[in-house]
Amino acid sequence: MTPQDDDLYRGRYGNGAPVGALSRWSDVLSTQLAHRSVRAYLPDPVPETTITTLVAAAQSASTSGNLQLWSVVAVRDPDRRARLAEIAGGQQHMVEAPLLLVWLADLYRARRVTEDLAAATEGADYLESALVAVVDAALAAQNAALAAESLGLGTVFIGALRNDPLAVAAELALPRHVFPVFGLLVGHPDPARPTEVKPRLAQRAVLHHERYEPDEVSEEVLRYERLIADFYTGAGLPPSWTRRVANRFGSVAGLRGRDKLRDAFRRQGFELR
Amino acid sequence: MTPQDDDLYRGRYGNGAPVGALSRWSDVLSTQLAHRSVRAYLPDPVPETTITTLVAAAQSASTSGNLQLWSVVAVRDPDRRARLAEIAGGQQHMVEAPLLLVWLADLYRARRVTEDLAAATEGADYLESALVAVVDAALAAQNAALAAESLGLGTVFIGALRNDPLAVAAELALPRHVFPVFGLLVGHPDPARPTEVKPRLAQRAVLHHERYEPDEVSEEVLRYERLIADFYTGAGLPPSWTRRVANRFGSVAGLRGRDKLRDAFRRQGFELR
Repeated sequence: MTPQDDDLYRGRYGNGAPVGALSRWSDVLSTQLAHRSVRAYLPDPVPETTITTLVAAAQSASTSGNLQLWSVVAVRDPDRRARLAEIAGGQQHMVEAPLLLVWLADLYRARRVTEDLAAATEGADYLESALVAVVDAALAAQNAALAAESLGLGTVFIGALRNDPLAVAAELALPRHVFPVFGLLVGHPDPARPTEVKPRLAQRAVLHHERYEPDEVSEEVLRYERLIADFYTGAGLPPSWTRRVANRFGSVAGLRGRDKLRDAFRRQGFELR
Repeated sequence: MTPQDDDLYRGRYGNGAPVGALSRWSDVLSTQLAHRSVRAYLPDPVPETTITTLVAAAQSASTSGNLQLWSVVAVRDPDRRARLAEIAGGQQHMVEAPLLLVWLADLYRARRVTEDLAAATEGADYLESALVAVVDAALAAQNAALAAESLGLGTVFIGALRNDPLAVAAELALPRHVFPVFGLLVGHPDPARPTEVKPRLAQRAVLHHERYEPDEVSEEVLRYERLIADFYTGAGLPPSWTRRVANRFGSVAGLRGRDKLRDAFRRQGFELR
């Protein structure tokens, strides 16, 4: 617990650490609190051995029932990254950063194992099985992201691969029963283009005790709207968080093609029953 | 990089570190590699200030588009934990451990914000929006879990809350557009009942380069079947991993009620279009 730690909290909440939060500390917490998504990279490569380390971190995360329903494709080929960047709406940092990890909800192995021992694979066709695979992939990826940051690397999640998951599947030769959930870009942050820590909603907006308390939301949203405006303005983005939320959910167009996600899952062999 | 670090890899893969993995190291990696799910707890409480710290870690994880589509209910009341343990199939460690964090895919706030600014909330009804909320919740929870472990606490994910999500929703007074994705039990591990690190599939089974390579799976599965048998036998569980996989996916009964997950999402107001 140092003044520096309180600065980390100030970056996250805009008003220093919540009461009592600084009474416990660890290097893990320092790395977590300092997280920022990096969208400006140097071209320096990420060595193979670092990928090995990140995957070991990912595999160390919990996985439901030890089923291990995820896998990952490491994309370093610049041409392939450029094509995937196009799919993701032309994100320049996907061309800059040397490594893209594409995280996959993977029922391929589990289905083959099941076919060998049971007559049917009925259970794999349900929404539950896809959800477990998606959660497994997310837990693994978060460990890999934090591991990368602990080694001085920068990361950013690329949800926009879901703008056209079937194109991603074709690019990565994904078999049926494997679905690309999101990407994680990894590279060396460009020190000439630093990134600020993004403030979040106050804890009282997301942490409930014993039962959900829906009434405390709106006051906090107004406070946050003012807090985040500075961050967004500094990043050259429109200042309003509420407008950002409304743009996403107010119309089907806000989903940028992802209204076809269910159809894409089905085409990859996920029935989502 | 110490002999101890190689031991961490040996626990995870059964044969020491993959080539080159030990060339990079951090305290974060040590905590991640040492992860084990704890199912034996002391009754000592987890203080409020620790919950605050864990939620700060959770909020520091990435969230798609900064939409922050998750929230969490901290359950400490022993009676409520006991009722939730019943829903989860009678898991005794849910009664033992002092804190259950229930992670929620939460479109409630985003919908309210959107309603205030736009005429409609059409985008929220699509599978994409539920998926983003689920991934957000998982990234946040993984940060909280690792933060807890970095403070000497133990954790275990409780997917079995999905055996009856509507009963969980009733117990936690969840409004429509909020869905319980999983629980995370947190407490002080009982040193008299220690837990081993669980080995995982070798990296070549989950890490692909440039394109998915489906053919290398079966040999690795056979090797893993032998490796994990010792762990499962030591834990008093049936020794076969492939049988475990086949039991889950071979029939609808293997889902233990979670074949109704899609219906439960719909009843909570998620259309999953």
